[in-house]
Amino acid sequence: VTISDEPQRVAHITSGLFGDQSGWSHDVSEGSTITLTGGADRRDDCAWFSISGPMDVVFGSDYVRGPKFMLYELGLLSNYDIGWYLAGANLSDIAAMGATPAGFLSVVRYPLDLPDSEFTEILTGIRDCCRTYGVLNVGGDIGSAERIILSGSAFGVIRPGSVLTRDGAKPGDLLVVSGPTGLAAAAMAYFGRDALSSAAGLDATSSDKLLSVWRRVRPEVALGRRLSEDGLATSCQDTSDGLRATIEQLATASQVGFAVDQSRIPTHPAVESAANLLGIPVLDLVFGGSVDFRLLFTVRADDPALPSLWEDFPGCTVIGRATESREIRIHDGGESTELPGEPWRHHTD
Amino acid sequence: VTISDEPQRVAHITSGLFGDQSGWSHDVSEGSTITLTGGADRRDDCAWFSISGPMDVVFGSDYVRGPKFMLYELGLLSNYDIGWYLAGANLSDIAAMGATPAGFLSVVRYPLDLPDSEFTEILTGIRDCCRTYGVLNVGGDIGSAERIILSGSAFGVIRPGSVLTRDGAKPGDLLVVSGPTGLAAAAMAYFGRDALSSAAGLDATSSDKLLSVWRRVRPEVALGRRLSEDGLATSCQDTSDGLRATIEQLATASQVGFAVDQSRIPTHPAVESAANLLGIPVLDLVFGGSVDFRLLFTVRADDPALPSLWEDFPGCTVIGRATESREIRIHDGGESTELPGEPWRHHTD
Repeated sequence: VTISDEPQRVAHITSGLFGDQSGWSHDVSEGSTITLTGGADRRDDCAWFSISGPMDVVFGSDYVRGPKFMLYELGLLSNYDIGWYLAGANLSDIAAMGATPAGFLSVVRYPLDLPDSEFTEILTGIRDCCRTYGVLNVGGDIGSAERIILSGSAFGVIRPGSVLTRDGAKPGDLLVVSGPTGLAAAAMAYFGRDALSSAAGLDATSSDKLLSVWRRVRPEVALGRRLSEDGLATSCQDTSDGLRATIEQLATASQVGFAVDQSRIPTHPAVESAANLLGIPVLDLVFGGSVDFRLLFTVRADDPALPSLWEDFPGCTVIGRATESREIRIHDGGESTELPGEPWRHHTD
Repeated sequence: VTISDEPQRVAHITSGLFGDQSGWSHDVSEGSTITLTGGADRRDDCAWFSISGPMDVVFGSDYVRGPKFMLYELGLLSNYDIGWYLAGANLSDIAAMGATPAGFLSVVRYPLDLPDSEFTEILTGIRDCCRTYGVLNVGGDIGSAERIILSGSAFGVIRPGSVLTRDGAKPGDLLVVSGPTGLAAAAMAYFGRDALSSAAGLDATSSDKLLSVWRRVRPEVALGRRLSEDGLATSCQDTSDGLRATIEQLATASQVGFAVDQSRIPTHPAVESAANLLGIPVLDLVFGGSVDFRLLFTVRADDPALPSLWEDFPGCTVIGRATESREIRIHDGGESTELPGEPWRHHTD
């Protein structure tokens, strides 16, 4: 087992992974281009981009620690997986603004006895997630800590005036989620249960599906760009605080209410199986603090671009409508109640 | 003692501190402007800037944990101080690139029992440091963790082509440090010593001086801008890895050596007092892993702008010269040796 110090890791491991980054470039719009002039390969104090022409720039940070580390500590997530997760979680914030990711910075701190091989796996997961979404890990901070700590920030670009915000929903707009939620919470509940408490288990397909949302976060970059380029979304946010909290936050920012139609809520069979097995109401998983990184957004009901959106992004599902009344209610036939799931608290580290 | 949860802290504490950020704007050069369109006050997934005209953008991250927390745990640094430190450390990376800070993101994670008052103090320290350097804390991530964890990232802008890098030093260039180093290391050594091991103590002026470099990091933003605007520095880096490591890194990046003149090394009386009291060679503190956030840079020896630089930044001291030979040596009269201080290892958390 090799355990190198920080200068050796910079010199040998990160250099190998993040070599020759110059040349990355993206055309934001006619006449507006961003180019990476100096990335992690240069080892300056900062990464360095050159911008020509007008554009908007978005910039966000996500710290990763908390429940997902239970799955890591149980051996269900690898070092590669948590590296991928860090990048994916941060790119999801860029996607939620409708922007194109341009650069990612990773803060990776680790106990002194973390072998080089495991450190390399974390960074490889970060690199591969970034590559998948067309962006580079252009810098960050590495070094020791009592235990693994992952934090990141990302930077994206977008045509001026087309940023997606949370505050533009109008009464009558359709409320759309980009796919089923609750998978991440179902994974936590299922794998975190006392093994003795349940003799029966999920089938392999279902349990793999639940883990896959932790192992390969899929930030909705393509959808976010489509929503901003076509001026489709009147408000947008990712569901990283859970579906209920995200609906509440869109409502507050836009000063509207929402009428959610229970029969339209997309649920995944693996979530239903886990809920049944665990004796939890399925909607508690679907609406609770499940970190699925879906997009939740609103569109004008009569927008002529909707049919092609539904065609190109078939996971998108209309689940309700914005209302003048500031209430948030879920309707099941004639009945209407508060949203299920825990309200946003985040006290789950 | 009030201990609010995360949504309450967002709603009440951070809103109060980071209210109404719109309108921040900076002219990078003729026709090139950056404006903050949506900051932390908007509570979107990311902060959002609007850029017009060509410019270069730099982007860096610094995690803050480690030795400075010994001083915090000893009660010598307040919550306000460590908040200020987080912002200052990150702005120092922007300064080292010669850029103007444009936005800061703070990741503040804390144990569940951290009272609102202490959380507010940390964020106030961040805010005040940012304000001092003309930048805003435009977003980030808050929430719980086992103990206080601070990480940040910053974003700066600069006229195209004038970024300061580490790789431009040429043989014959003068090596300059922006002020005395070793204060941060002296504070660690002095306040970290076994109280019983030394009956005598430093005078109040000296011990206050040592603590002040931890309490109020002063990133050299004005100096960095001057060095880039006038095309003065051929290479530049901050000394956050310590003076020896910084000299070594500039040498490696620029493919030069350095001949350092021991008689020119600036030392602070408080560092000398601490070194004497502790029986440590003063140059070990000055060159070792002391996180003083000075700038170390090179300039052409015949640059006509040097006299006005010395006049405006009187702390700047020429301490040596870049050499064709790739060796790094310190000269004391006729003698020449390796640099004192520990080489860069960073294994000090």
